[in-house]
Amino acid sequence: MTGESVGGLGHNTNLCVFCTPPHSLSGEDPVIPLGAMTLPSSPPPDESLHITKRRLLDVGLATLLERGYNATGIQDLLVATSVPKGSFYHHFVSKEDFALQVIDRYLVEVHGLLEQSLGDPDRAPLERVRSFFERLMALYASQGYLGSLIGLLGQELAVNTAFRRRMEGAFDGIARRLAEPLDEARRRGDLPAEVDPIQAANLMIDCWEGAAARSRLLRSPVPLEAAIEVSFRTVLA
Amino acid sequence: MTGESVGGLGHNTNLCVFCTPPHSLSGEDPVIPLGAMTLPSSPPPDESLHITKRRLLDVGLATLLERGYNATGIQDLLVATSVPKGSFYHHFVSKEDFALQVIDRYLVEVHGLLEQSLGDPDRAPLERVRSFFERLMALYASQGYLGSLIGLLGQELAVNTAFRRRMEGAFDGIARRLAEPLDEARRRGDLPAEVDPIQAANLMIDCWEGAAARSRLLRSPVPLEAAIEVSFRTVLA
Repeated sequence: MTGESVGGLGHNTNLCVFCTPPHSLSGEDPVIPLGAMTLPSSPPPDESLHITKRRLLDVGLATLLERGYNATGIQDLLVATSVPKGSFYHHFVSKEDFALQVIDRYLVEVHGLLEQSLGDPDRAPLERVRSFFERLMALYASQGYLGSLIGLLGQELAVNTAFRRRMEGAFDGIARRLAEPLDEARRRGDLPAEVDPIQAANLMIDCWEGAAARSRLLRSPVPLEAAIEVSFRTVLA
Repeated sequence: MTGESVGGLGHNTNLCVFCTPPHSLSGEDPVIPLGAMTLPSSPPPDESLHITKRRLLDVGLATLLERGYNATGIQDLLVATSVPKGSFYHHFVSKEDFALQVIDRYLVEVHGLLEQSLGDPDRAPLERVRSFFERLMALYASQGYLGSLIGLLGQELAVNTAFRRRMEGAFDGIARRLAEPLDEARRRGDLPAEVDPIQAANLMIDCWEGAAARSRLLRSPVPLEAAIEVSFRTVLA
């Protein structure tokens, strides 16, 4: 994986003719090809995104999170955002490309929460990890407990090898970041010496994803709260 | 929930005219309405199902598990099974009804594994619980590690309240069954007195479902093995 940034597609003016009717079909804008987008090393600010593209990604995130990939229609999205079709295809090669860019944007948000939580030097490492999951739970709350976008789309699109690898790469990136404070906790004696930080991080993520799926069914934080408790009472004991 | 059986729709002859071409459209056969199907108290034998219906449900299970609900087309299913359209709609009111009956059949299988594992009087209660998850892992292996059908469809169809409640009912049924040996383990001192059996069962299921989702991404048993280990080393410690 590279640290290549996501979303800033060399299209940072709000005056693009493709984004105001009468619309035009175009494929000229450089678009990141499928599989080339990766977890960014530092999330680009929202302002770097074209306003229309940002609106499409924001509404797309909400729609994909509610309905999933196959039940999300581009036409509905265009109506909801009042964006013409040509403008959509100016910013995205295909529905798949669009979904991948929504996922990248979501991952930018998740990695932002990771940095906010894990970068706090005033807290012990395990407290920082706990803070990450609490922030993630607050994000889910703001979305009405619809679960985890990468968990949801990862399941639905697992039949597509490119998607499956990308989702696995996303989980792997989060696990590696979480493993850093777990390793620090182990070195300072807050965790047993035999704990494997990467393995523990992956277990926490898997339990969390299962709880996120259950919270989506129940529309409730209860499974998430239980997952945090069990992670800190037992998985890390 | 009642103990009403699933699948035996009063249609147990293999000589049905609806199931051999020339096909006919019919809605006369009594079909269990959406929401009325429940976890059966005792799984009906396969033989009680009409042969065509059984074929549709078997191929449907494999297809839904691979592709999910929205990406599964009835037409593809008819081609794969060489079943005429009229015959499909003789057995199922709709695609939704079909998916619910596939789920019920899958749950019959899961509850069969529960009974085989938890009903073994020669094993300690926690060993019986572990045996259930090991059998479930063997089932997933036989399917190529495509994860959990109820987890998968529960996520994709969570937008549909009837589906969501049904899936939650399915998890609840499994949790209540698993809570029985956990309670027995607690009473005989194999678990701390303060463990809540239902809560512990739900936590195990959530961790398992997250691991099943991850195993679907990786096409590998590794996350499932880790979930079993962590459940027995820590959640139940």
